[in-house]
Amino acid sequence: MAKSISAVFLSVAYLIASPALAAEELLTKAKQLFEPIPTTAPNLPGNPATPAKVELGKMLFFDPRLSASHAISCNSCHNLGLGGADAESKSIGHHWQLGGRNAPTVFNAVFNKAQFWDGRAKDLEEQAGGPMMNPVEMASPKAHVAEQLKGVPGYGEVFAKAFPGEADPTTLANVQKAIAVFEATLITPNAPFDRFLKGEADALSAPQKEGLALFMDKGCSNCHNGVNVGGGMYAPFGVVEKPGAELLPPADKGRFMVSKTPSDEYVFKVPTLRNIALTAPYFHTGKAWDLRQAVAVMGTSQLGVSLSDDEVDKITAFLASLTGDQPTVTYPILPPSGAATPQPEP
Amino acid sequence: MAKSISAVFLSVAYLIASPALAAEELLTKAKQLFEPIPTTAPNLPGNPATPAKVELGKMLFFDPRLSASHAISCNSCHNLGLGGADAESKSIGHHWQLGGRNAPTVFNAVFNKAQFWDGRAKDLEEQAGGPMMNPVEMASPKAHVAEQLKGVPGYGEVFAKAFPGEADPTTLANVQKAIAVFEATLITPNAPFDRFLKGEADALSAPQKEGLALFMDKGCSNCHNGVNVGGGMYAPFGVVEKPGAELLPPADKGRFMVSKTPSDEYVFKVPTLRNIALTAPYFHTGKAWDLRQAVAVMGTSQLGVSLSDDEVDKITAFLASLTGDQPTVTYPILPPSGAATPQPEP
Repeated sequence: MAKSISAVFLSVAYLIASPALAAEELLTKAKQLFEPIPTTAPNLPGNPATPAKVELGKMLFFDPRLSASHAISCNSCHNLGLGGADAESKSIGHHWQLGGRNAPTVFNAVFNKAQFWDGRAKDLEEQAGGPMMNPVEMASPKAHVAEQLKGVPGYGEVFAKAFPGEADPTTLANVQKAIAVFEATLITPNAPFDRFLKGEADALSAPQKEGLALFMDKGCSNCHNGVNVGGGMYAPFGVVEKPGAELLPPADKGRFMVSKTPSDEYVFKVPTLRNIALTAPYFHTGKAWDLRQAVAVMGTSQLGVSLSDDEVDKITAFLASLTGDQPTVTYPILPPSGAATPQPEP
Repeated sequence: MAKSISAVFLSVAYLIASPALAAEELLTKAKQLFEPIPTTAPNLPGNPATPAKVELGKMLFFDPRLSASHAISCNSCHNLGLGGADAESKSIGHHWQLGGRNAPTVFNAVFNKAQFWDGRAKDLEEQAGGPMMNPVEMASPKAHVAEQLKGVPGYGEVFAKAFPGEADPTTLANVQKAIAVFEATLITPNAPFDRFLKGEADALSAPQKEGLALFMDKGCSNCHNGVNVGGGMYAPFGVVEKPGAELLPPADKGRFMVSKTPSDEYVFKVPTLRNIALTAPYFHTGKAWDLRQAVAVMGTSQLGVSLSDDEVDKITAFLASLTGDQPTVTYPILPPSGAATPQPEP
């Protein structure tokens, strides 16, 4: 602790004494920990993007007929207008059941080490297969997905263009591939913080710079680092002090439920902080609606520090600098249902 | 009946004997009954459109926080990718309750004489106030709508731009006005039938022309006429012969429930047939998934004629010519929820 506290004093002192020097030091340090969001969508190994595949993925992302009820789409819980999440503690799924954990943002998810709060899917393609079949989410029987889409006459041609040369392109595997390449386009470059990382010293305000210094010096960046300012590792929630049961209910043991390794109890993927100011409520429970509260809880539970109101304000100001350009998406026109289309579950 | 049957024979005979003459006669007759969809959005009396108001209306149309659960938006049931409807018999609303009737398309709704199946709202502005407060739909308490939006900090500025000079622009009345001007932009011009009406003789195929002739000669156009090929009047469902209880359940007496006038029993607004090939299932119950079936039922129940398979095919082919350019809509970026935002109902 002594070291990081002195570092904070140093940073703050610099900001007062010599803003130019402090900004330079801050940038040097930040560049060692973070990377800007790229301005073009990354390639997915083994799943090359084509305009036709991205377009199909977009259609599927918005098509509620991937759910048993025909009422829930990927976009229902990963709303592209709400930071790629849904402004709910837990998402409302099939028959009004609640999801197990707060819906993570789909934006920049391509840069995460793994998907879901517990990392149980290794990539976007694997993730896309989850909610469709999850009985509390979209609740489509696995074999039904392709059957449903084959029952919508207009989709055949779109799948054929997206997966040329395949004899039977309308498959669940291709649904997942197409959704993944679309989701890989949902990146949010040009946040003030990205512009700062690229050398635009004035992209961050003075409080945001102080917040960035605190973010690094207090230890937040020990876990929240890299291109996604998170998303790159796992960590126990409550490493120093367990938060209350509302934020960390005993029944949800996190990654332990996937790995069955005792050291993974209450371990979760460190979430990205990209666009965090857009995606309240916070934590895997979605029980913290105030970003300032979430910052303070992280201080006590993860770092064992009680952040002052001023420190919380500055870190929160810095987090607002992680809001990037939101994706510009033209709403897709979907092929219609008809006489031959499997009907929604009553 | 004799008259209309002979007219059909005449039209069909013309199509065989002299296609050019028949097409000319067909066009002359059609122009007396129908009008093309305009290519620009109509003005709403007392509610002038501005880009800022249309943009606000679009945001509200897509914002699920207008519902008590924060999970249902206007677009949930009037999906802009599904012909402005939702491909459900009855829409799924608050707590998974089912709506009372099939969701009508929002596309070209501005041209309807009144809104809802029973015409209980005189225009789009009045209609927009219905589903938000309906306990089986979005279920927002009336006073809560403005309160909710005022709790989303970013909306203040957007309302101020849309309603300049108003001291307190974030009101339910303005929500309805903004949604109405956005919905007025959701028109679908340039359908093959519109191009035919404007003189492009080849815009309809031969079977579509025969279908159009049948549509007029059999009497479909007695009710389905005007710019919306419907939407301009009320009619009893089952005027000649009542369809079965699945299509016309005794409990739903239609416009009678609004007017309490006995002659309004089982009377409904004649729906638009614009984009009808995109908006299965059909009728106020949404119990007919096959457009061919719907055409045949209309023949027996409304006209007292048993249409042959060939006639049904041709009329259905004509109806497909009513599919116009679907609206191009950029998905709106919504202002985020935060600490001060009223939370969704648990």
